[in-house]
This record gives sequence, structure tokens and C-alpha cells, in this order.
Amino acid sequence: MQIETNQDRLWSTLMELGKLGETDKGGCNRVEFTVLNKEARDRFCSWARDAGCQIVIDGFGNIRARRQGKNPDAPTVMCGSHLDTQPTGGKFDGVYGVLGGLEAIRALNDAGAETEATIEVVVWTNEEGYIFQPMMGSAVWTGMIPLKEALEMRDEKVDFKICEGLERMGYAGTAPLMEREKVACYLELHIEQGPVLENADEWIGVVDSTQGQHWYDLQLNGTEAHAGPTPMALRKDALMGMSRIALEVDRIARDNMPACGTVGFVEVFPNSRNTIPGRVKFTADLRHPDPEKLAAMDREFRIIANDIAVDMSLKLSLNEFTFIKPLQFNQPLADAIEQAVIATEKPYRRMFTGAGHDACNIARFLPTAMIFIPCRDGISHNESEWAESDHCKSGADVLANTLMAAANGRVKYE
Amino acid sequence: MQIETNQDRLWSTLMELGKLGETDKGGCNRVEFTVLNKEARDRFCSWARDAGCQIVIDGFGNIRARRQGKNPDAPTVMCGSHLDTQPTGGKFDGVYGVLGGLEAIRALNDAGAETEATIEVVVWTNEEGYIFQPMMGSAVWTGMIPLKEALEMRDEKVDFKICEGLERMGYAGTAPLMEREKVACYLELHIEQGPVLENADEWIGVVDSTQGQHWYDLQLNGTEAHAGPTPMALRKDALMGMSRIALEVDRIARDNMPACGTVGFVEVFPNSRNTIPGRVKFTADLRHPDPEKLAAMDREFRIIANDIAVDMSLKLSLNEFTFIKPLQFNQPLADAIEQAVIATEKPYRRMFTGAGHDACNIARFLPTAMIFIPCRDGISHNESEWAESDHCKSGADVLANTLMAAANGRVKYE
Repeated sequence: MQIETNQDRLWSTLMELGKLGETDKGGCNRVEFTVLNKEARDRFCSWARDAGCQIVIDGFGNIRARRQGKNPDAPTVMCGSHLDTQPTGGKFDGVYGVLGGLEAIRALNDAGAETEATIEVVVWTNEEGYIFQPMMGSAVWTGMIPLKEALEMRDEKVDFKICEGLERMGYAGTAPLMEREKVACYLELHIEQGPVLENADEWIGVVDSTQGQHWYDLQLNGTEAHAGPTPMALRKDALMGMSRIALEVDRIARDNMPACGTVGFVEVFPNSRNTIPGRVKFTADLRHPDPEKLAAMDREFRIIANDIAVDMSLKLSLNEFTFIKPLQFNQPLADAIEQAVIATEKPYRRMFTGAGHDACNIARFLPTAMIFIPCRDGISHNESEWAESDHCKSGADVLANTLMAAANGRVKYE
Repeated sequence: MQIETNQDRLWSTLMELGKLGETDKGGCNRVEFTVLNKEARDRFCSWARDAGCQIVIDGFGNIRARRQGKNPDAPTVMCGSHLDTQPTGGKFDGVYGVLGGLEAIRALNDAGAETEATIEVVVWTNEEGYIFQPMMGSAVWTGMIPLKEALEMRDEKVDFKICEGLERMGYAGTAPLMEREKVACYLELHIEQGPVLENADEWIGVVDSTQGQHWYDLQLNGTEAHAGPTPMALRKDALMGMSRIALEVDRIARDNMPACGTVGFVEVFPNSRNTIPGRVKFTADLRHPDPEKLAAMDREFRIIANDIAVDMSLKLSLNEFTFIKPLQFNQPLADAIEQAVIATEKPYRRMFTGAGHDACNIARFLPTAMIFIPCRDGISHNESEWAESDHCKSGADVLANTLMAAANGRVKYE
């Protein structure tokens, strides 16, 4: 039996939710803990109840919409994402994963398809982390951040604690956090947030791993001096040092495909046309899905950055700001997704996710995999973020059929 | 007859003037049009009168302290510099040239050395240009900027016009501006503002030319994208483009010694660790004392910058912000300085000035040359700016003897 979702219903649901916080440029401004995001949560709960789901709110405000299975002992099959956006976000990032899950449930209902295990669509609290931190809902649910600590968290940008924010929205729930034995797996449907699928004209990404990443904070100190009377041979130019290191970040990534290397932030001191920069602060970012290759890139980068500094008589400080290990998602679960895609006859690829998702937290505890669809020009976190209705429908089809397979015990997670 | 200046008197005069606007770190904050700079002007006028000079103030507030020569028809021999500083300036930039000139007159007086021509020490108005523009006094005096236009000038930073600023200080004078036939030449004594002399352990720079310079404003437009999910092959990274162009600025300068090449200003958009920069604004600065070599550097830079942009699928805008032609100073006048240095037996070199000075304006109209002394670490426009008393004395000796030679008709300007 093949489940087919309803393209028009999914699209109109997406567009209706997108009205909440809609911006002039067609994006969405719906930061977590705002009245607008409370409305989005309420709307989702109402739709899910109409689709026959039971709504459960846990202590961190994560919403679990449960479509009951036949066998109460079968561990739950979960999917989900988030409803909150960046202040200049779009209508798809997160929202599509939640409403795609809702559409999967509606389509299962339409087909009269009962499942052994309960299927849940989860709305994770504060994924975007415009205030507080990103990906908090899953971090708390899995125990990576203690619930009490998370509820007491504060942020400079706002005058409330998270527990107060949840109370205000009416989403300070009481349901328990993750009980390992009661959940079978987690699936997340999402726009790609990159250009790979669009560029290859592929409709679905079967996401079976994450990139690992090193985030570095660097500073080069040289000597600030007048740009006119200071001969080249006597300069210690921090900007030229930064330029050489930046190009090495780029080269290391290109030498280690499919790695990524980025210098996203640069601050120059004193940043004056007529002065040789005496100091440059900048960031570097190296990513690779393979842990050994990533480690080799890290070693090479540190050696080269230091060599450049020595060569140019600059003082380098290089600190690791974040290190995230690459993760393999659950391969049998990804295989199940791939089977569901093949049934749709749409072009696809297996790939890793470049961006972070709640799935990346959950993958450390439960069998997890993701489903991507293309987004226009690979753009997200932007009001021009866009996905095609056809692609949205295909992604939801793949999700629905994978959920059904998993909820009927047809996925062997190993 | 060899004039010798009084080292202690020069130094104590420098230190006394340096008390006006002295900063905690030993620098000077004495911006033009402030009460503090009025006090500095008054102090100079008082000292110059005590040294027998007549004080003349022109319509732009330039102070001319005249030591009368024997022959009223002989054109005046001028030296000078400025008393204003940057807000975090030092005690030497400009001030040394004025007080070195005063010391030269005092030393001529001590020696009873009359001259044929009148010798003048000029204090130029608003050389630093922290408000309004730099090097204004000489620009107005030579007619490069019409007096009326200059007096009406406004600046966002302050709520007065220049004419009001001059009135307030009591320096809105009435004397005529430059009368070409009445001035023979102009000399300016200054700290080097670069590390060349200090580095070579030389006491005096005989400055016989300027660097020409091209100042460019550049912008590279690429595509802003998420640093994680965007493969290297699909990036249009404006920061990597800027880095390549910056290194070419450096290389072109090193290939054309004694050229200088600098990227002093860089602004990255959106300047976020996790985003590939979609846009970078930056400046480039190329300088060379030889006009043909500078023109070749300019051509090479434009071609290479464009090639890099094309190679990286970036959109480049490159605008020339300023172009200043290299200038030869008056060689016989520089030769006269060199003769005076040789008499002191101090190590010296002939060199160009990297920084701009009132002398660079005046050189377009009158025989001009400059005298440099070393400054610590080549630093200026900074509270840590410093010059050694020994060097100050030597520079004043050279100035005094060159003034005397010129004022006695011993320099043939050609």
C-alpha cells in the first residue's frame, strides 16, 4: 500500500500558517515565545486534534501530536521539526517538517491506514535560537541540557526566563521527557538550505549523515602603521596575514571534497584606508562528514595558519570555538527513506546535512534520518526562502510512507 | 658660518607646547579651532615676537612669523608646519616643524646672523583635518581652494563654519594670500612618520620627492549562503575574492620597490560566522614615487582585480577615490639641505615622503623640500608618537643652515 499526500491541502496549510508573522517581503517573523508563535502552536494543535491526534506537551513546551497505533507496546515512531523562525525567516524552514508530518497523518487517515506503533509529529521548542540557544527542544528532551537549567535560562535580548516564556504562551507542559524504550526512531523532513538538490535537479535528499565541524576564532596581531611612509619590507600587516589564511581555509576544503571551508566574519583594526591594519579578528569554519578527514583538515589548518603567522612576523591566536563530531544517521532508516523515494520515481541522492537540526541532537540517542527537498537558490534564514509545491508534496509522500513502514515494524534499525 | 641650535631650549619649548592638550598617555589632543589650539597659536606668536619677529595673520588664519632681512626686495624664505593635532595625536607631528623653525630663528639671533631675505616661520591652519579637510592652510594660501569657499565650509562633526572657528580663536586675519614673486622657497621640517630612518640608524632624511598614490574603493558581490550546506563548487564567496585581490595589492607593491600597497579597510556582509560573505567592501592603496611605474601598477592592479572577479564569478566595482601624482621637490633646494646635513656629519639619506604635508601642496607652486628626523617605531597620529631630543636638535640645525643659505641667495632653484 502506497500512501499519497494531498498536494493542495499541504500547500494551503503551509500558506495559512505562513500568514502568522508574514513579512512585507513574503517571509516570516515568528520568533519563539512571541504571541505569533503561540498562535502558530495553537493552530497546529487544533489541526492535529481535528486529524484525530492526542496532544501532549512536555516540560519544555515541546508539542507531541500522537496518532494512536494498534499496539500500545510498540515504540513510537516520531517525526517533527519546529514552527519558530528567524526574525527575517521564511515560511518553510521548520514549518514544512511539522506540517509535512501533519499531512502524512491526514493522508494515512484518508487511506484508512492503521499502524502498529503510534506515530507522533513533534514541534520542538526554540529551534532557531534567535533568543537563548538553537535546537533547545531536542537538547532538553534528550537530556543533553537538564530541564531545570534550561527553564531558568536568560538571554540579554529579552527580559524573561524560558519558563516564563513558556507560561506566557500556555505551553509549560507536564509530560515526561524522552523515555528511551518508548521511542523507536526519529525522522525530520526539511528544506535543504543549500543548493545541491536544486543544482542537480533532484527532488529528494536522503540524509544519512551530518558534517562534523570545527569553528575557530582567530586573531592576528601585527603593527599598525601609516600606509604611506612604511616600506613593504618593514610591515607587519595583519590583513595580509588574514587573507593568506582565508585562502588556505578555502584550499583545504577544496582539496578534501565534499568538505566546506568558510571565513564568515572579519573585523579589521583600526579599519582606516590610510593605516596598515595592526590587528584582524576573524573566524574560520571547516566541515567534513568523515571524522578522520576532518581531523586531518584540522591538523593541516593549524600548522599552515601558524606557518603563515611566523612567516609574516605576526602573532596568531587560534582558539576552537566549537567542535561538532560528524555523525552517521541510522543507515537502515535512511535505506527505508530511499525505498520510499524509489516508489515515487523522483530523482534523489543520499547526502549529508550541512546545517544543524534537532535531528542532529536526537541522532546521538535514537535511530534518526532526514528527508530534504530543494529550496530556491539554496536560500534559507531569509525572507526570500522558497520551496515548490511539487517538491513539498513529494517530500511529504516520502515521509508518510517511511513513517508507515517504521510504524509497522518494517525497519530493522540494527 | 655654521649656525648651531640650542638643544635644551628647543626641547623645553616642544615640551611646554605639548602641555596644551596633553593626554594621559603623553600624547596631545589639540584639534584646530579649539581653545587649546588657540592657546598654542598665542604661545607661538608670543615666543616669535620675543624673538624679534613680526606676526602676520592671513585671511585663512595662517600665522607668518617674519624675521626681517636686510634687503626688502629679496623674496622671503619660508619654513613651517602646523600646531594642530589629531584627537589622539602626539607632541611632534607638525609642532616640531613650527618650533624647529622658531629655534632656527632664535639660533640665528644668538649668532647675530643677519640675512639678505626675510625668513618666515608659518603655522598652517588645520593641517590635520580631523574636522573639515586636511592640509587646508596651504591649499588656501596657494589658491588651490578659493578663500571664500574655504571660509564657508561646514563639517558634520561640528556646528560652525571655518570663518566662525577662526573668529572664535581670534585668527581671522587680513593679510593677503601668496604673492608668488614675494616668496622664494618653502622648507618643512617634520618627523618621518615611518620607520625608514630609525631602521637604518640615520638621523636626517633629505626629502626630495613625494609618492604618487591611487586610492581605490572596491566592492565584490557574490552570493550570501549558509556555510554548512553550500558546497565549495557552488559558492560565490566575496571574502575569498577580497583576500586574493588584497594579496595582489601586496605583491604588486613588492614587485615595484619602493612602492607601497595597502588594504586598510574591509567591511564584510553579513559578517556572520555561519554565512558565506555575499558582499565585501574594501579599499586599496598603491603608491610609488615614479609616475610611470605608478601608472603601470595601476594598470596591472585593475586587470588582475577584474580577472579574479571573473574567475570567481563575483561582480566587481572598482572606483578611484583619489589620485595624487608623484611630485619632484626642488632638487637644488634638496641639495642645499644635503650640504647642511653633511656639515653636521650625521648619517642621512635622500628619500621621498610617504605621508602628505603642506609642503606637497606648496611644491606645486614654489621651490620646496623637506627635512625628516626619525620617530620611534615610525609611529605618528598616536599618543605614543615620540622623537629623540638629539634628532630634534640635528633637524633644527639643518633647517637653520639651509634657511640661512637660501636667505643669502646661495640656492639656485633653476
